[in-house]
This record gives sequence, structure tokens and C-alpha cells, in this order.
Amino acid sequence: MNSVKTIEYGTFEASLKRSEAIEKDLKINPGKYRVLTGDRPTGSLHVGHLFGSLENRVRLQNLGVEVFVVIADYQVLTDRDAFDAISENVHQLVMDYVAVGLDPDCGRTFIFPHSHVPELNQLLLPFLTLVSNAELDRNPTVKEEIEAAGQKRVNAGMYIYPVHQAADILFCKANVVPVGKDQLPHLELTRTIARRFNKKFGKDKEVFPEPAALLSSAPVILGLDGAQKMSKSRHNSIMLRATEEETAKLIKKAKTDTDRLITYDPDKRPEVSNLLRIAGIATQRTPESIAEEIGNGGAGKLKSFVTEALNSYLRPIRARRKEIENDPGRVRDILVRGIQRARQEAEKTLAEVRTVMNMDI
Amino acid sequence: MNSVKTIEYGTFEASLKRSEAIEKDLKINPGKYRVLTGDRPTGSLHVGHLFGSLENRVRLQNLGVEVFVVIADYQVLTDRDAFDAISENVHQLVMDYVAVGLDPDCGRTFIFPHSHVPELNQLLLPFLTLVSNAELDRNPTVKEEIEAAGQKRVNAGMYIYPVHQAADILFCKANVVPVGKDQLPHLELTRTIARRFNKKFGKDKEVFPEPAALLSSAPVILGLDGAQKMSKSRHNSIMLRATEEETAKLIKKAKTDTDRLITYDPDKRPEVSNLLRIAGIATQRTPESIAEEIGNGGAGKLKSFVTEALNSYLRPIRARRKEIENDPGRVRDILVRGIQRARQEAEKTLAEVRTVMNMDI
Repeated sequence: MNSVKTIEYGTFEASLKRSEAIEKDLKINPGKYRVLTGDRPTGSLHVGHLFGSLENRVRLQNLGVEVFVVIADYQVLTDRDAFDAISENVHQLVMDYVAVGLDPDCGRTFIFPHSHVPELNQLLLPFLTLVSNAELDRNPTVKEEIEAAGQKRVNAGMYIYPVHQAADILFCKANVVPVGKDQLPHLELTRTIARRFNKKFGKDKEVFPEPAALLSSAPVILGLDGAQKMSKSRHNSIMLRATEEETAKLIKKAKTDTDRLITYDPDKRPEVSNLLRIAGIATQRTPESIAEEIGNGGAGKLKSFVTEALNSYLRPIRARRKEIENDPGRVRDILVRGIQRARQEAEKTLAEVRTVMNMDI
Repeated sequence: MNSVKTIEYGTFEASLKRSEAIEKDLKINPGKYRVLTGDRPTGSLHVGHLFGSLENRVRLQNLGVEVFVVIADYQVLTDRDAFDAISENVHQLVMDYVAVGLDPDCGRTFIFPHSHVPELNQLLLPFLTLVSNAELDRNPTVKEEIEAAGQKRVNAGMYIYPVHQAADILFCKANVVPVGKDQLPHLELTRTIARRFNKKFGKDKEVFPEPAALLSSAPVILGLDGAQKMSKSRHNSIMLRATEEETAKLIKKAKTDTDRLITYDPDKRPEVSNLLRIAGIATQRTPESIAEEIGNGGAGKLKSFVTEALNSYLRPIRARRKEIENDPGRVRDILVRGIQRARQEAEKTLAEVRTVMNMDI
């Protein structure tokens, strides 16, 4: 293993530099890139997802980049409730995707649950032989997730899932993966697996590209408690599918402070500043200018402003969602076509993998 | 997890009792059983394989039982030499299989490398979530194999391979697996996975049968050194594909002792007794009666006897092997049909698995 190279790409600074270079080139040569992104189907999506990742995906799609969206349904298996509702949650996800502007009809965007792409999952087998247990033991994200799940017994599926994630990314030879900083260790493992595969089995041939991180520049959206990241399980989020009335009600209950003069001060006034940030994104304005406009209006005026801004922003999204909700065959059709395309890629890749491993019959 | 049940079936005595009952019933109701068996493609097979497992498979086939023979090509990945020759070794295996009497044309015997059955490999994903790392850490066979391979770093593929083996067995819902005593822990894990899957995902439905061990009653054949199990890597074996002259030469060099009176005494005369045992199986006689016939003829006469007996026994097998060696398209054809049949089963099983896991789209 080339440890020097590992260290070089392993630093955050190196990833950031690389990400910035790709960001520039994406606009000039979108056809050179294939993006892999996705979610676990644990329920429908909220405003934090929209501003944090969904809009970026739509942007990439509209730049002319191919976007493969994997619905990681095997990754919810450690959570009993989610397992009962996987199928329903997959459908909810697809409706949210289409609502925000991902367009499975544009010919560049493909949405599929990985449980329906056997050739992708088979890549797990060769990949596992390229990773030592010691490396899996060290993975910080897995450690955290195990703790977060309150699990005492680590099941083997949870343990190896960063390797499965490598299969999710590499099956279609994606070369760009939009991630947050906390996801970098996972992506680093995928890069390592690609590199080792090419070296051991590919000999001089690059079978897999080493996918680069496209680091998010989106501001972190906190929940309506102003304390933690927006998250459904923390009951501090506004779902995309909520009605305007529900949205107004939730924002009314949002935490603020007692100072009537509204100012943008993330450190000292996190709750107020978070609301200003949401309103800022929704109106394409700076949080500071909105604060100035509201001035001495207090939390009440701020909340009205946020409600109006967010509902306006979400109106076309929610309209598209209603449309697809009323067309039950459409979600299935999107998935069928996405699976078809994903399998096409996965079959091609697996055939190549078998050939370089001397496994042709 | 039902630990009482685990313990009950986990004892050797329980497995043996169960095996004996199945052995009886196999002759009466062969249609009730499906056997899963197989090998790693590490090279061609020898007399130890023939007497130890191959003949038993042919016997089961001829009883009217379905026999799925998995060529576990992913399991050789930790051994670099074998990896370079996987494809060639798979072909050698198939030729040996057909030579000894496995008959892919009988409609009950199917030979396939698992690397070509993606739906089988995908079963690894749900199965991994049913097993804890602690259980994998405890598996004695894996421990031994890691030590035998002289590996310091355990790769994750090696670590989880007992779970992959469960996929090899359960994909076709095999209910009988011929094994030696040392393989029981692996099979026990497969039984545990079947049981847990049925409980967690199947609710009241038995998705997977718990496969039973069919314990071998074949005597252990030692190598020509009379010291260890016959094994290609120990250079003490007679390959099925060897010529009669090669066979004679190898037996001539076999270790014996200086006592001219030939007697069957496994404890005190392991080398001589092992040769008598080989001759006994090849002539369907007891080793004792052969010893008596040779009497004072010494090692020379014993070796002539063994050579003649074994070459006679192997003559039709070797003739069939020559035949298939001269028909290069036939091996591929056997594999293509085996893969087709295996995928049929695997697709059906995976579809059922996805349904009970609420993963239908």
C-alpha cells in the first residue's frame, strides 16, 4: 500500500484544494464527471437536507453532470422501525427528490435502491479482501454511529458498511462524491480500496477512478431549537412535505431570545441567527440585511418573515410533490428505470472486475 | 436469539444423530433433500478428495438427490498464486468432477463458481446484520485458517467468510451439507443465520431451512508420507489426473517401514496401514485381508498391490477425464448451465428475501 499517497490525500487541506479545483472544472467540463450521492431511506426529507445537499445535487444535474442517487436501504437494517417501513420510505424519498428538482427524465439522473442491484453488492466481496480489520476498527464514523445507536453488540453489517459504501460509489465509477467534512474518512477508505484494487488486480490498468470529495459550502442549518443540526429524530425540523400552515406553526414555536432588536450574531444568538440564515437562503439575501429590515420588530416579526420567505420558497417544490403524490405509478417507474440503469453499469463493472481477477469462465 | 436451541444442535452428538437419521431417509425419500457441497478452486483433486468427499457426492446424486456444487472462487483471494490461476483451476475442478462421476446432464447436479451468481452474493448483506463481531471473533475454523495462512493482518474478507458460506448454502435452500467434524462450527453459524433470519424477517414463515450436517463416514486418507492428511501443498498426494506411470512412481517412493511381514496396525504402522487402506477402498476389500494376502512380501509387494489396485480403480475415471480434456467447450458449457440454474434459485430466494424485508419497490 502506498502510504505516502494515503497521507497526502488524507489531509483535509488536500481534499479541500482538490474539491475547489473540481468545482471550477465542473462548470467547464461537466461531461467529465459522474457524481454519486444518496441517502438512507429513514423517512421524508426536511429543509436541512434541502439547503445542505439536495439543492447542490440539482445544481450539478443542471450543470450537465450525471448524478447517480443511491438509496441505501441496506443501511437502515440496524434500526427496527425503519426496517418495517423501508419500502414506504423509499417512495417518500423519491417524491422529495422529484419535488426539489431532481429530474429522472433528463437522462442524467438515476435514482435506485442498492438492494435491487446485485452486481453492485457483489463488489463487496473483492473489496473486503483489500481492507484489514484493523482499518475498520479505526474508522471514526462507524465508531460514532455505533455509539449513537446505543449498540453494545456490533453487528458485522454495521462493521463492514464503509466497504459497502465503497461498492455504492465505485460500481458506476463515480469520480465525484459531494460530502461534508465528517464523511471524509469514509470516502478516504473508498479511495484506498480503488487504489489497492487497481494495484493488486488491475496491474497497470486503472479499473476504478479514485473518487474526489466535493466539499459542501452550504451553511449548516440548525433545527428550530437553534441548538442542534436539523434532524427528524430531534423533532426540530420542517419537512418539505409539510403544509404552509404546519410550517407557520412550527416556526411560531421556534426558540428565540428576548432581545427585540434582531441582529445576526451566530455565536451569541444562535437561534435568531439560524432563523435569519434560513430566511436568507430562501430569499437569496444576506442574514444581516434581513436583520436590519426587521430591526426592532422582535421575534414575532422575524418569525413572520421566515414563515413567508420559506413558504414562498417551498411553494413550487410542494406543488411538484403534490403532483407526484397523486400519480402513484410514477415513483415505481422512476425506480424501475433507475435500477435498470444502475444494473447496466454494475454488470459492466463486475464483468471487468471478474476479468482482471482471472474469474472468467 | 434462541440460545437453548443453539446449544442443543451445537453438540457433536446431536449433529451425529441427526446425520444418521438423514442418511437413512435419503435412501427412502431422496426428493426431499437438496445437497450443497463444493470446493475452493486451488488446483486439481487427488485420491484423498475422491475417497473423502467426491464419491459421497456421486452416491448422493445417484440416489436421486439434487446436488449443488459451488466452486468457491472468492475464497482463494487471500492466496496470491491461486488468484492468478483461478479460472484455470475452476476448469480443472470441473474436469475432475465429471471424471469421478458427477453428471451435469442428469438434471440433478449443478456446478457453478459463486462469483457468477450476484444474487447469491447479495445475501451476504442481510446475513451480516444478523451476526455480531463477537461471534465471528470466536469462530475456530477462521482462527485456524488465519494462523495456517501465517497472516498477521486479518483482511475483512477472511473475517466474514463464514457468513459468505452461509449465503453459499442458503441461496438454494439446501437442507443437507456433507461435512467433516471440523466444518461443524461453520455449518452451525449457517444454521444460526437461517434461524435468526426466519425469526426477525420471516415472522412466522420459514424462509430458510436450517441445513443439517451429513457427517462423513469415510476413513481419513493420509498422504504417501503416512503422516499427514493427503494434500497437494504437502507433496504427498496422488492426483486423479496423474498417469498410471506417475502413480506407480509416487507409490514406489511412499514411506513404509522395515518389517517384511505386512500387517494392518494403524497406530504402530501408520504408513503401511494407510497404503493398505487405500488398496482396500480401491478393491472393496478390508485392509486386513490384503495384508494377509501379501504376508511376508514386504513393502515391495505391498506397493505393487496398491499401484495395481489404485490404477485399476482410477482407470475409468482417468479415461473420462481424458475425454473431457479433449472437448474444451464442454467445461464452459457445464459452467454456463450450472450458473444459469444457480441464478434461477438465487433470484427466486433474493426476491423472497426482499419481500419479507419490506424492500420491494
